[in-house]
Amino acid sequence: MRFTAVGKRVPRLDGPDKVTGRTQYGADITLPDMAWAAILRSPHAHARIVRLRTEKAAKMPGVLAVLTGKDFPRKDGEGVPILARDKVRYRGEGVAAVAAETQEEASAALAAIEVAYKPLPFVADVRQAVAPGAPKIHAESEDPELPNIAGVSKVKRGDVEAGFAQADRVFEDTFETPWVHQGFLEPHVSLAEVNRGTGGVTVWTSTQAQFNQRSDIAQALGLSLGKVRVIGLPVGGAFGGKIALCLEPIVAELARRSGRPVKAVVSRKDDFVATRPCGAAVMELKTGVKKDGTLVAFQARMLFDTGAYPGAQHDTAASLAQGPYRIPNIDITAYGVYTNKAPAGPRRALTSPHVHFALESQLDIIAAALGLDPLEIRLKNAARKGDAVAGGLTMPYNSAASVIRTAADRAGWSPRRGAARGSGSKARGLGIAGGHWTVWAGASSAWVEVNEDGTISVVTGAINLTGTNTSFAQIAAESFGVPVSQVNAHQGDTETSPRNDGSWGSRILFAVGEAVRRASEDAKRQLVEALAEELETSPDEIEVSGGRVRAKGKSLSLAEAAERAAEYRGAIIGRGALSDLDYGVAVAAQVAEVEVDRETGRVEVKRLICAQDVGFAINPMSVEGQIEGAASQGIGYALSEEYVYDGAGQLLNDDLMDFRMPTSLDHPEFNVALIEERKDKGPYGAKGVGEPPLVPTAAAIANAVYDAVGVRLRELPMTPERIVRGMRRAS
Amino acid sequence: MRFTAVGKRVPRLDGPDKVTGRTQYGADITLPDMAWAAILRSPHAHARIVRLRTEKAAKMPGVLAVLTGKDFPRKDGEGVPILARDKVRYRGEGVAAVAAETQEEASAALAAIEVAYKPLPFVADVRQAVAPGAPKIHAESEDPELPNIAGVSKVKRGDVEAGFAQADRVFEDTFETPWVHQGFLEPHVSLAEVNRGTGGVTVWTSTQAQFNQRSDIAQALGLSLGKVRVIGLPVGGAFGGKIALCLEPIVAELARRSGRPVKAVVSRKDDFVATRPCGAAVMELKTGVKKDGTLVAFQARMLFDTGAYPGAQHDTAASLAQGPYRIPNIDITAYGVYTNKAPAGPRRALTSPHVHFALESQLDIIAAALGLDPLEIRLKNAARKGDAVAGGLTMPYNSAASVIRTAADRAGWSPRRGAARGSGSKARGLGIAGGHWTVWAGASSAWVEVNEDGTISVVTGAINLTGTNTSFAQIAAESFGVPVSQVNAHQGDTETSPRNDGSWGSRILFAVGEAVRRASEDAKRQLVEALAEELETSPDEIEVSGGRVRAKGKSLSLAEAAERAAEYRGAIIGRGALSDLDYGVAVAAQVAEVEVDRETGRVEVKRLICAQDVGFAINPMSVEGQIEGAASQGIGYALSEEYVYDGAGQLLNDDLMDFRMPTSLDHPEFNVALIEERKDKGPYGAKGVGEPPLVPTAAAIANAVYDAVGVRLRELPMTPERIVRGMRRAS
Repeated sequence: MRFTAVGKRVPRLDGPDKVTGRTQYGADITLPDMAWAAILRSPHAHARIVRLRTEKAAKMPGVLAVLTGKDFPRKDGEGVPILARDKVRYRGEGVAAVAAETQEEASAALAAIEVAYKPLPFVADVRQAVAPGAPKIHAESEDPELPNIAGVSKVKRGDVEAGFAQADRVFEDTFETPWVHQGFLEPHVSLAEVNRGTGGVTVWTSTQAQFNQRSDIAQALGLSLGKVRVIGLPVGGAFGGKIALCLEPIVAELARRSGRPVKAVVSRKDDFVATRPCGAAVMELKTGVKKDGTLVAFQARMLFDTGAYPGAQHDTAASLAQGPYRIPNIDITAYGVYTNKAPAGPRRALTSPHVHFALESQLDIIAAALGLDPLEIRLKNAARKGDAVAGGLTMPYNSAASVIRTAADRAGWSPRRGAARGSGSKARGLGIAGGHWTVWAGASSAWVEVNEDGTISVVTGAINLTGTNTSFAQIAAESFGVPVSQVNAHQGDTETSPRNDGSWGSRILFAVGEAVRRASEDAKRQLVEALAEELETSPDEIEVSGGRVRAKGKSLSLAEAAERAAEYRGAIIGRGALSDLDYGVAVAAQVAEVEVDRETGRVEVKRLICAQDVGFAINPMSVEGQIEGAASQGIGYALSEEYVYDGAGQLLNDDLMDFRMPTSLDHPEFNVALIEERKDKGPYGAKGVGEPPLVPTAAAIANAVYDAVGVRLRELPMTPERIVRGMRRAS
Repeated sequence: MRFTAVGKRVPRLDGPDKVTGRTQYGADITLPDMAWAAILRSPHAHARIVRLRTEKAAKMPGVLAVLTGKDFPRKDGEGVPILARDKVRYRGEGVAAVAAETQEEASAALAAIEVAYKPLPFVADVRQAVAPGAPKIHAESEDPELPNIAGVSKVKRGDVEAGFAQADRVFEDTFETPWVHQGFLEPHVSLAEVNRGTGGVTVWTSTQAQFNQRSDIAQALGLSLGKVRVIGLPVGGAFGGKIALCLEPIVAELARRSGRPVKAVVSRKDDFVATRPCGAAVMELKTGVKKDGTLVAFQARMLFDTGAYPGAQHDTAASLAQGPYRIPNIDITAYGVYTNKAPAGPRRALTSPHVHFALESQLDIIAAALGLDPLEIRLKNAARKGDAVAGGLTMPYNSAASVIRTAADRAGWSPRRGAARGSGSKARGLGIAGGHWTVWAGASSAWVEVNEDGTISVVTGAINLTGTNTSFAQIAAESFGVPVSQVNAHQGDTETSPRNDGSWGSRILFAVGEAVRRASEDAKRQLVEALAEELETSPDEIEVSGGRVRAKGKSLSLAEAAERAAEYRGAIIGRGALSDLDYGVAVAAQVAEVEVDRETGRVEVKRLICAQDVGFAINPMSVEGQIEGAASQGIGYALSEEYVYDGAGQLLNDDLMDFRMPTSLDHPEFNVALIEERKDKGPYGAKGVGEPPLVPTAAAIANAVYDAVGVRLRELPMTPERIVRGMRRAS
């Protein structure tokens, strides 16, 4: 099949405004008569609130309204409180909020809030959290044996003990990953105003998920959905960090009480410490293997730091921990563990990068011990169609082996058995890793209208994080055979667009893209039917292609046809709505080539070869961008990013200077291979691509470091200090 | 049929924010990094532009861009130029525009534009315009015999000469109406910004017709529709004055050239003189009548001042001039006539108030001459179903007589033959007048979504001028049997809503309301089908009423049903689109009771009885508000509003102090009778109601003045000066 619009490289339509600083983000917005909100945050990691008085603050100059946790109907135990009640469970937890005429007056009023705390012993990490006698953060634990368990997820298949019994060798390793920030550059920002006629609130916010925000705000404020309008703003980075409520219910409630529009911007420091960073993990893996490298049993016990309130990180971890490999006997237990940290949020691919760092590092440990080539052990065990892989799912196709092989081929992989031990001040090494991610549909809807000049408008409520609007334009253009420039795809808000779930899980192009395709086809069908009626012919006699409509020997431009059809029976508006497309499994594999400075321990990633089954690349430029971006994030995860705390649980590196993310100067040479299996039900076979490429990166780099200098690090990030310490141990 | 939501009195949802000053109008909006535009306007009514140099202005401090007429591809003869080229044709015509960092810098730069004019003789009014030897405003005239004719519209039926031959009496009268401002309080305001990626422009503007603005802006700037996004702002009054382009293409082009958001607000004075006021008219009527009052022939020759550029006022005038009466022989010629005034725009009901002031005044002249009761002559001639009335249209029902009779009955009308001649300082009088208006559909579309909590969202692209969103909510609520508070109706912009023609012609509730009804029914059908599939039953077995869904003995809330259906096959989104609903004829009749001060000539309207065939009042509170508002406007038109010019063609009363509109203190006692024929194809039989009630008011007041003091004024407004002069002539 030959395509005219999809499968082509199209620059992101929102790109130029973004790179030239023209895009208006939330912080740029000013509403008339706007007041400012500020939030009083806990200085303690764990404390009882003994007294909280806001009377003085309420009388401070310019103060319009003051809120505390009592002002929100949400009860303890129902997820993350909007503001703390009775107890604070992490440093930076919101205790009270103020709206005032100016930012300065709002800050001054915070100082006038009287709050007395009784500090409690606090839990700094997951190991401490599950140790006997640990301070209890919540009254109940999900596991009667262990304190501070927020949730448990288990995956079992086969008989893992029998599997270990069959194994020639059993490997046990523990891996650790740190707390990290998602790395979005734009801090959280929200504005709200109230409609006096309806009592409804309008909230402008930097979010990945405006409809989910609508539900959550409505619930927090006790309003119906119809009374909450969420206008998703251009997002200056999110990566999972802008899904949950943050400022939204606070500015909305302050707007209701003050009768004024209210704005709040989270400071960089608060954004680091008090929003939803990605939690740490401790992962104990026990893997049984035959001499030839065949995996026969896999057991994992994993602790995922969920911070002070429940999260779902452990579910994904349990589901994906076995990687894209065939392992007959499985016993995985993943815990969500409370600590006195900010509630953990998702980050790109959730906990899949965590578990693949563990698994893919261990595969290389196994390969080295058995004298096998790391590529060979992966190909031997790669899951094939029908193999059970993720939780209750089976692999729907054979792509795993071909993706892994493609990465290796592109990298010029040659078999390696055990680490190379060169000399000289710098050592080069090559490492490979695979990984997978499961893509689901969720609520997905789109409208497609044919305008009277033949241009086409696409409307969805999906937040355009990654250039999906550009791909939507391609999909609609393909339906009508018009140039992409003839289509405009727009993000509506929760009132002016049909319902869509959030921009997460790499679902947008897969699911909303399919809704756009269906809406385009629906619009085309309406156009054809209207013309058939007008021209008194059968719809089958009418052909739409190349931007023209041919019927009864006539050839009309799309503009002429749309105008005639619209005059005949109203505007041509196609609809696409779905909630289920089955699932797509996206396998990624990467080869990293690193150079390790033996003296300083500094690791430089020289090349990163990324192969991925993308289903079908609607916009290869965009897909490559996603892959390079995610893999860059993986480099930061591998080498430099981590939250560093002092003994009192205080975050020490709460800014972009000290929390070290890679910049464009740190980018390696990328080599991206797109594998197009076209087996999924996304538009033209496309599936999600944004998250999988972060999954294997850290492991590939860890394996490359081992290949270069023989140092196996089981803890991220692989800082120069840890590398040097590792080399000293090894020598 | 019993209704639960339509036909009920529901306060406007946007009311409280408007009356408490909370609504944000265009002037309130500030975009980051925004520049300001200012427009250089012609000080001459008619002049050749001899020289126009902008180089100095372009170098003034803060100046970002300068435009002249050459910067717009539009050619002479294609409607109103964005900025004048070669010639200016009215005082206040735009000659150049500047964008600068501040309003002050923009104004200062205007002074630095070098422009030399060669003044030309100018045309002050329509009589002068068509006189032999008049200065020519455009090279060509539509009528070879007459100069300065912009357009001609003729309606002929029967044989008017034969009609006059049959008549017992023939009456010839000439009536005049002045230039007036539409009376909107919010001056024109627009903002624009450019998307660098797409090259598209976004324009925020106070408009009645965002989709038509989109087309016009696209044409002015040479862009496709997909490159122009128009966001219709809350409108602080429009009444026909905010349909045509005003600032929009200027700020859009300045934004494109400066790369900055650009804002412009028209000053009150410029809004009076240089936007699109409603033009003057001179109407010569010749009517043949039998002794018993039967109308047998009607001839009209009317001149409508279209200002310096073409307009379509004369078309409506010719079509509606015979009123809602049966007249077998008709010969109407209406001219659009150029003068050196601002291009005329429509005002509520276009020129129907003009022609009905003439016709309905003449009917009373005839009645008085024949010794007939004014009510009697109207009832005798009232058009019945099948009678030809407006242009090529026939009256689709018999409402005319019943509307007229209802007004008279409500007023306590008693037969009156000739004017009462009382004594005392104040005289009371009663006058009656009828009138009609034709309502058309045009492009009308809506989406209706059922949210997961059972609330319902309605989206249209119709500008919510008159509270139509509240009525849309009622219509959707009626479909699902839920309370109106469970529905939110929203105005999207041209990108996020389906296409709709402008809010004009009283078409919104009639046509877009019907689209909303269809979309609601479509959503209901989808809900039922999805549930039927899921529950394995027939759609016929499922009932939606009272906000509940009943199937197979189960009763689900709308929320439960919507969520189940959505999970099963995606969000429930109904669609309604139409372009044609035939037409509705809206007949209005009013009786005015006035008190005339014999000494000062001041007329006070004491009571105004308004009867109107509204088809069906979806929201009677809103319909009554429309009728009272329109009739109040009619009081201003009758008694005080007019543009006063000096001999040089300069407008003397260009502000709200000197252009005297009635305020709420001038409101009479209203008595509104809604007649519900329910014969039209609007939702539940509703038709447009906003314009008809302005149609008879001026004539009813003129007839009441005659009834009170025996003074027949053939010219509006009936100022105290004219009344006193009339009384002096009569005494």
